[in-house]
Amino acid sequence: VTDLLWPGDYRADDLLSDQAVLRDLVRVEAVWLQSLVAHGIAPASAGASPDDLLALVGDAERLAAEAECGGNPVIPLVRLMRERLAADRPDASRWLHRGLTSQDVIDSALMLGAAAALAAMRRELAAQAESLVGLVAAHRDAPAVARTLTQPALPTTFGLRVTTWLSGVLDAADDLTRVATPVQIGGAAGTLAAVVELGGDTADPVGTARAVAASTAAALGLSDAMPWHTNRAPVTRLGDVTVRCTDAWGWIAGDVLVLGRPEIGEVAEGTAGGSSTLPHKANPVLATLVRRAALAAPGLAATLHIAAAEYSDERPSGPWHAEWATLRTLLRRTVVAASQTSELLRNLRVDPDRMAANLAAVADDVLAEQRATAEVTRRAPSPTYLGATDAIINAVLVRARTFLEQPT
Amino acid sequence: VTDLLWPGDYRADDLLSDQAVLRDLVRVEAVWLQSLVAHGIAPASAGASPDDLLALVGDAERLAAEAECGGNPVIPLVRLMRERLAADRPDASRWLHRGLTSQDVIDSALMLGAAAALAAMRRELAAQAESLVGLVAAHRDAPAVARTLTQPALPTTFGLRVTTWLSGVLDAADDLTRVATPVQIGGAAGTLAAVVELGGDTADPVGTARAVAASTAAALGLSDAMPWHTNRAPVTRLGDVTVRCTDAWGWIAGDVLVLGRPEIGEVAEGTAGGSSTLPHKANPVLATLVRRAALAAPGLAATLHIAAAEYSDERPSGPWHAEWATLRTLLRRTVVAASQTSELLRNLRVDPDRMAANLAAVADDVLAEQRATAEVTRRAPSPTYLGATDAIINAVLVRARTFLEQPT
Amino acid sequence: VTDLLWPGDYRADDLLSDQAVLRDLVRVEAVWLQSLVAHGIAPASAGASPDDLLALVGDAERLAAEAECGGNPVIPLVRLMRERLAADRPDASRWLHRGLTSQDVIDSALMLGAAAALAAMRRELAAQAESLVGLVAAHRDAPAVARTLTQPALPTTFGLRVTTWLSGVLDAADDLTRVATPVQIGGAAGTLAAVVELGGDTADPVGTARAVAASTAAALGLSDAMPWHTNRAPVTRLGDVTVRCTDAWGWIAGDVLVLGRPEIGEVAEGTAGGSSTLPHKANPVLATLVRRAALAAPGLAATLHIAAAEYSDERPSGPWHAEWATLRTLLRRTVVAASQTSELLRNLRVDPDRMAANLAAVADDVLAEQRATAEVTRRAPSPTYLGATDAIINAVLVRARTFLEQPT
Amino acid sequence: VTDLLWPGDYRADDLLSDQAVLRDLVRVEAVWLQSLVAHGIAPASAGASPDDLLALVGDAERLAAEAECGGNPVIPLVRLMRERLAADRPDASRWLHRGLTSQDVIDSALMLGAAAALAAMRRELAAQAESLVGLVAAHRDAPAVARTLTQPALPTTFGLRVTTWLSGVLDAADDLTRVATPVQIGGAAGTLAAVVELGGDTADPVGTARAVAASTAAALGLSDAMPWHTNRAPVTRLGDVTVRCTDAWGWIAGDVLVLGRPEIGEVAEGTAGGSSTLPHKANPVLATLVRRAALAAPGLAATLHIAAAEYSDERPSGPWHAEWATLRTLLRRTVVAASQTSELLRNLRVDPDRMAANLAAVADDVLAEQRATAEVTRRAPSPTYLGATDAIINAVLVRARTFLEQPT
Repeated sequence: VTDLLWPGDYRADDLLSDQAVLRDLVRVEAVWLQSLVAHGIAPASAGASPDDLLALVGDAERLAAEAECGGNPVIPLVRLMRERLAADRPDASRWLHRGLTSQDVIDSALMLGAAAALAAMRRELAAQAESLVGLVAAHRDAPAVARTLTQPALPTTFGLRVTTWLSGVLDAADDLTRVATPVQIGGAAGTLAAVVELGGDTADPVGTARAVAASTAAALGLSDAMPWHTNRAPVTRLGDVTVRCTDAWGWIAGDVLVLGRPEIGEVAEGTAGGSSTLPHKANPVLATLVRRAALAAPGLAATLHIAAAEYSDERPSGPWHAEWATLRTLLRRTVVAASQTSELLRNLRVDPDRMAANLAAVADDVLAEQRATAEVTRRAPSPTYLGATDAIINAVLVRARTFLEQPT
Repeated sequence: VTDLLWPGDYRADDLLSDQAVLRDLVRVEAVWLQSLVAHGIAPASAGASPDDLLALVGDAERLAAEAECGGNPVIPLVRLMRERLAADRPDASRWLHRGLTSQDVIDSALMLGAAAALAAMRRELAAQAESLVGLVAAHRDAPAVARTLTQPALPTTFGLRVTTWLSGVLDAADDLTRVATPVQIGGAAGTLAAVVELGGDTADPVGTARAVAASTAAALGLSDAMPWHTNRAPVTRLGDVTVRCTDAWGWIAGDVLVLGRPEIGEVAEGTAGGSSTLPHKANPVLATLVRRAALAAPGLAATLHIAAAEYSDERPSGPWHAEWATLRTLLRRTVVAASQTSELLRNLRVDPDRMAANLAAVADDVLAEQRATAEVTRRAPSPTYLGATDAIINAVLVRARTFLEQPT
Repeated sequence: VTDLLWPGDYRADDLLSDQAVLRDLVRVEAVWLQSLVAHGIAPASAGASPDDLLALVGDAERLAAEAECGGNPVIPLVRLMRERLAADRPDASRWLHRGLTSQDVIDSALMLGAAAALAAMRRELAAQAESLVGLVAAHRDAPAVARTLTQPALPTTFGLRVTTWLSGVLDAADDLTRVATPVQIGGAAGTLAAVVELGGDTADPVGTARAVAASTAAALGLSDAMPWHTNRAPVTRLGDVTVRCTDAWGWIAGDVLVLGRPEIGEVAEGTAGGSSTLPHKANPVLATLVRRAALAAPGLAATLHIAAAEYSDERPSGPWHAEWATLRTLLRRTVVAASQTSELLRNLRVDPDRMAANLAAVADDVLAEQRATAEVTRRAPSPTYLGATDAIINAVLVRARTFLEQPT
Repeated sequence: VTDLLWPGDYRADDLLSDQAVLRDLVRVEAVWLQSLVAHGIAPASAGASPDDLLALVGDAERLAAEAECGGNPVIPLVRLMRERLAADRPDASRWLHRGLTSQDVIDSALMLGAAAALAAMRRELAAQAESLVGLVAAHRDAPAVARTLTQPALPTTFGLRVTTWLSGVLDAADDLTRVATPVQIGGAAGTLAAVVELGGDTADPVGTARAVAASTAAALGLSDAMPWHTNRAPVTRLGDVTVRCTDAWGWIAGDVLVLGRPEIGEVAEGTAGGSSTLPHKANPVLATLVRRAALAAPGLAATLHIAAAEYSDERPSGPWHAEWATLRTLLRRTVVAASQTSELLRNLRVDPDRMAANLAAVADDVLAEQRATAEVTRRAPSPTYLGATDAIINAVLVRARTFLEQPT
């Protein structure tokens, strides 16, 4: 996997790559087949492991080309696997995909990719929280200028600025933990009709069908769920939480870009990037690439909402199909930005002297509010004007500690 | 309030109208002033009720025009109130807005509007859930065609289709309950410096400052919070949950539009709309207007994310300003669509005979999967092919009951 | 018209306000009626001027509320006018709206508003070009730092920077001149059936119908066109050119915001804005508000595209309805941003000394490429390193002159 | 190139694939080098053909990984080519990339890909126009129901419906012809400083520099242009016209999806798609995939606008980087949708009998307006009610003929 036009893409490795998606599609089919066997619906001879099936399939290129005929890649995939199983494993060939529909396989496979993306994002958010806690510890009281609408406003500390970034990271982590990755098992119309029919001679065909679905979910590491073939909240929740992450990182990157301008000079990236023609350049490359992701993510998440809102029938013509690549792009890029933000924060260079000098240069201005306040209170101004800075930092550090102590 | 170009806008009444926003801006100022008094920071003579202050202000027109000079309406509002208080209530004039910054007042006032919007959305979701439960009760077993990619797929029931809509409504309600509307109290740079300075002769100026903020939140009915002046998760969470609602309603409306085509004829709006030139027309107007909202909402929510991602400094130049009208439009329209969807569902006319006839017309096709399944099981097909329909309906009805029994 | 949450909104005056839209809806009806009379289809007694009809209608509030029943405001408007004409002007009552459909009236009325918006934008682009030409004249050779990825790159001149802004303004103006505002006349299904029927006893009913449409277009100042009731290119072209303008202005505003940071200090707004609590503040308010518009516009234009792409039938259920308020908001805000950008540029304060000082501070760095180039050419570096700056400025000034000499 | 999650992606072949972009990056470097030689700036020994350079580079994987360090792929690409040229072709190594900056190479290479995409889109629009003209010829007078808001409105003809689709295709083609693909040649800060310096001993270094740029443009088949490194109209114009195409195709697809529902049955895809589990299914797969593209395109084009609006400095930190992959995705998908729409229209099956039957079923309703018109005219209704259908068709066919006769 490579993307010449999205530098840093390698950080997402093969997450949701064509090969990874193919592997997950096959895995869903295999686990389902094994569940049919385990619940006595299909004979033991029909069972096949994910690796067994994957060995039949080869690479994704041909399937990608054939996917157009039926509108999705599962149709040629099932045909191919059935053909190749027919001679040696006729029962597997006969039972493969029974009870499922294409949407079950695609939605569940994408949720496997999403679960991996969420786990990676969770790890990176924790790494970022640790770096930020470290920055607070190192520069908690470093005096700095607070700026609003680009102009000096009040005194603050670098510790407080870092703490606000940390609050954004913690909020994103909170939202992340609430997002589920449910299995999709509904059959052709969300009724589970085929699997109930398949288990027609069990004591409780409906109960068995639901049990097959539940054990499929468990084996895949997804949450069990009623069919959501037309209710796309699981997809839009993923999209929204993803953008909430890139929002938090884009804001950090934006601050790093502003504060790292040489005329301000308060922070710098640990390892700056070069230029193709300017030998002296030290570019804030990670912040640039993170901000890029934050600018591009909202349009993708909005597309997931448009798709969800335009669903109709028991499976729509277009909206479902628009989700797949959109979700993949959004998740890969978010994992890339997660990793870049972690690196940016881990190596951030901080110049407290420059902060102090910038503050000194506007010392009179940034105490104007304090003087105006003194006119109201009719008391002399306090020696400092940092308000509840300490209390705010403490409160956010408590949240950070709780988050970092959670098992991942 | 009126909007000639957004039919149905009247349903949002004066929610977040200019007058309502002005009233809430004034209310935030008054409650803050009262909290300063209550905590012994300002003298009792400085107190003023929301009504006292509102009486000074008149209508929003002049303030709207003057808002441009400083970039927001709070600047001329505070100036105006101070001027008008000066003669008769000099202490109120002197203490008004002390400790606050424009962003505190605007963000908190918008959260008051958001809280009202969320409450209205919650009520409508409950009304929709009740109507949907009623539709399930009335038509639970009505046989119908399940369609995928516009073509007949399997048999289903109208009860199950309604149940999937219900699951969307319940998911939206779940998300809604998790969204907070926090007060914004941070002062000019999110440090609470001014209010700590104001309470400089109390025993614990920082604790007092936090207490003033907490009691302001309580009096306003907002949740207390650390300053979130640069961390915009509270705004994007609002936007996202709002769109999750319009997604759910847009999908229902889309189904009603398809199923209500005269060639299909399975449902109809209770009161159809007319035409300016076609005397016979019975247009599905509510579904049309709900779908309209669902098409327009994602772009607005995406703008809130773009703004959040482009924050920088202690208050940014542009992103914050882009949020206000965007959030207002999104919330008003969502409340309108909520009410329209409730009415649509309450009055939905259902034609089970037409459903049965449509199913009969494709009876052979929609049982093709069952016949193919019989070849796999080597058993005769079951008398019906409705799978776990009943169990799915029951599971969603349990969720609905739990939701409807919650206190609002 | 006022918008407390979009400071500067007053600059768009009543452009596309509810009252203005109502006036234009009535104007379309009146002009059409007059054209029917002029072409001998309706009797002279049926004629009514726009003012005649407008006098019947009163304000927009009631119509806005009634607009929901049929899904658009024309249905109650026509009913109201017919009722009020019935007693005294029965022929006008009888002939009003004959041959039209709601969409004809709404689309044409919105195009009247769009034409006014385009004219205003054109005037402002010309004013901006004049200011920019003036800035080039005043500071053409002022040495300055060129910055890339926030870091110093090469020497440039303020004249060249202003010239690039100018090129953006000229490109937007080029695109603007290509956008048409066509009349919509198609009748209930885009066939012109009713007006052809109305003129059934003329020599050439179809020719007469087209002539009525053409003279309606001419009288309204719109371009004549085949029905575009389902082909929404006229709407998306408007949206796209509008965003092209806000892109150009957002970029200028962004540069002003960066260059106006006190640590850089190269430009400043002529009249800076104040703060609600910070007496010393000089905020770049116009640049802030322009950037706000540029951040919010793309989401609105994207909604127009989504609507266009989801059209179906001879009039769709939702996509058309989503256009109206979206287009109105986009156009009003663009006219506001146009005016704010003109004022920003007209009053921009420029500090060439500060530019020179900033350049001097990085003089060595910004000549690094020149030194590297000298290693390639094996010649001593030239005395300056400004390249084709002069030629580029001249070329853009020629374009500006051509534009400014065009009649508006 | 393959994309398992965007069925039909193979239709874009290697357009703007990583390999194609790499080839175009190298081509820009080679052509520039050859232009330096041709204008006497670099020695003849420095020249290298695109193939020469491409042979040095190998595949895109390594470069993609290294692209992150400097934020773009040109930096490692130039370093790699210089290293590999150093031994055998020292002059080429020394002169390679002199006068250019990364942005020149990336922007110009993307414009090469864009030009190829535009040409493919142009060809497909012509193919679509031919199919549509053929459909008009075959079914010009086929009576059909015109539907508005999903309900029967008036009689129309299938010929007129096809004609409106044709008008959308022609409008898109009109817009397409106006979009330029300009070369980007500006050097590190848009001043052309390095190339002027390189040509410092020519008679007219600035003129020579501009001539090198012009001949580079000519050799690449791009239009010559002043530097547009910060003025992104060339990119947003591409994005907008692309979406205008997908809008037109999405609308056609939407109509095919509605009219192809079995309960309506007026059209069908020539080769319908199958299902993974339903043996009888005949899915409208091409229309589904085209609609998918139309739903996803606006969000991508909006991202290009956000990027354009957030430019600052002489090269911004993030907005430029967000354009590359966004533009690539948008262009590839549009070429895919173009080809799918052409195939859809070429093979569209039309059922005039079903249209007539559908019309007959609502014959009374769809003539209600005609009867109401007769009350106004006090004449008997005309024998038909098709209005100016013929004249509208003729006018659009004239436009189509003009377009199809243009040389491509």
